[in-house]
Amino acid sequence: MIFMAQRPLDVLNRALGSPVLVGLKGGKELRGKLGGFDVHINLVLKEAEEIHGSEASKRYGTMVIRGDSVVFISPAE
Amino acid sequence: MIFMAQRPLDVLNRALGSPVLVGLKGGKELRGKLGGFDVHINLVLKEAEEIHGSEASKRYGTMVIRGDSVVFISPAE
Amino acid sequence: MIFMAQRPLDVLNRALGSPVLVGLKGGKELRGKLGGFDVHINLVLKEAEEIHGSEASKRYGTMVIRGDSVVFISPAE
Amino acid sequence: MIFMAQRPLDVLNRALGSPVLVGLKGGKELRGKLGGFDVHINLVLKEAEEIHGSEASKRYGTMVIRGDSVVFISPAE
Amino acid sequence: MIFMAQRPLDVLNRALGSPVLVGLKGGKELRGKLGGFDVHINLVLKEAEEIHGSEASKRYGTMVIRGDSVVFISPAE
Amino acid sequence: MIFMAQRPLDVLNRALGSPVLVGLKGGKELRGKLGGFDVHINLVLKEAEEIHGSEASKRYGTMVIRGDSVVFISPAE
Amino acid sequence: MIFMAQRPLDVLNRALGSPVLVGLKGGKELRGKLGGFDVHINLVLKEAEEIHGSEASKRYGTMVIRGDSVVFISPAE
Repeated sequence: MIFMAQRPLDVLNRALGSPVLVGLKGGKELRGKLGGFDVHINLVLKEAEEIHGSEASKRYGTMVIRGDSVVFISPAE
Repeated sequence: MIFMAQRPLDVLNRALGSPVLVGLKGGKELRGKLGGFDVHINLVLKEAEEIHGSEASKRYGTMVIRGDSVVFISPAE
Repeated sequence: MIFMAQRPLDVLNRALGSPVLVGLKGGKELRGKLGGFDVHINLVLKEAEEIHGSEASKRYGTMVIRGDSVVFISPAE
Repeated sequence: MIFMAQRPLDVLNRALGSPVLVGLKGGKELRGKLGGFDVHINLVLKEAEEIHGSEASKRYGTMVIRGDSVVFISPAE
Repeated sequence: MIFMAQRPLDVLNRALGSPVLVGLKGGKELRGKLGGFDVHINLVLKEAEEIHGSEASKRYGTMVIRGDSVVFISPAE
Repeated sequence: MIFMAQRPLDVLNRALGSPVLVGLKGGKELRGKLGGFDVHINLVLKEAEEIHGSEASKRYGTMVIRGDSVVFISPAE
Repeated sequence: MIFMAQRPLDVLNRALGSPVLVGLKGGKELRGKLGGFDVHINLVLKEAEEIHGSEASKRYGTMVIRGDSVVFISPAE
């Protein structure tokens, strides 16, 4: 059996335009549509909202997030 | 359908001269007009004020903010 | 006797497609299948779940984790 | 209407010799005259004093401040 | 008398295959056999276990540890 | 009137051999004579002592201080 | 009078083989003989022991310490 490794930036590329969950340093979590990213993992998040549990607690619209603050990006499935 | 990815710096470029919300490490939030930026995401914020909730708590005028302290920039919509 | 040193990225390479435990800064631990990685130790984790002790407390599906937040990766044996 | 973007270092350059407020990581704020700076945003601050609210709490004279510790520089208006 | 300086990576090289104590940021300590390392001081630790005092509190098997999280490596003597 | 900007490293150069106050991350303050420095703002501090208020609380003799830990250097006037 | 500046790495070089005090981020202090170092200020410390006040609280033997964790190195006089 052959395992095909996925590169992290390829996974982000396939998630473009789709809903993602983003975890930030300090524990804040945001959800929105992944509008874009660059090699530093700076992100564009559209229709972004901060969530606590599964509740939206604050709406931001479009956000540019610096990669340095990002812990993870998880595409919705 | 074709999804056109937006590069983070392009989103900042379109926000030049417009109101933005800026989140800093440690949780401080500022609003003002985006006066400029560079590739390190160092920012120029004009008519800047620190906000708590939706209240302005402190006025700064023009600020140069080091990119290293920036978590996100959200253009007003 | 000859000791053959293992390079860190070679160990990750052999773990591709297999279960791993990932420790993050701040103490959070995740388990999942290692889907991919790059030289910055950015990771792709599949079927990821956060664990407390040996209990899964939150399910994420696929995650891209920034290397900067990773403390360790331990392949299951 | 044409918006002319201001580069962060240009804003600092125009503030040379003038009073500025400097915010440091950890929340300390200093005011003084901006005596110089370099591309790392290392600063020279003259007649520097630490402030709490609008009170000077400690006088330093000339300070060289490492850019890595700087959050923002706000020229007085 | 001539003092022969030891380069840090040479000390690690001589410790390959031998027991080491590893201190991480935040104070966690691990022991295991040093399986490998690279110039970033990313480590491979074999038969790794977390210790409190001299007691093993958690067993990990093989770990890849990011150099950025490492404070020290002390070869057993 | 012409304002002559001072580069941060030039200010350090003029302070060589003279008393300085050094502020470190975490709030510790040291005073001593500036014995040398390099472009990373690694410092040599001679006759160094930690101070609390204006009292010397601990004497160190010569110290090499990593620039990464330095917040500011203030030459005595 | 001519002041001869000392470069930080030259001070470390003269301390090779001699007792030093090493301060780490977080406040831990170690003493031992400086066995070696590199340009990142990664250190080799021999006969290393952690100290509280002037008491040795823990003995480590030889340690490789990552420069990123080092705040200062003070040669004994």
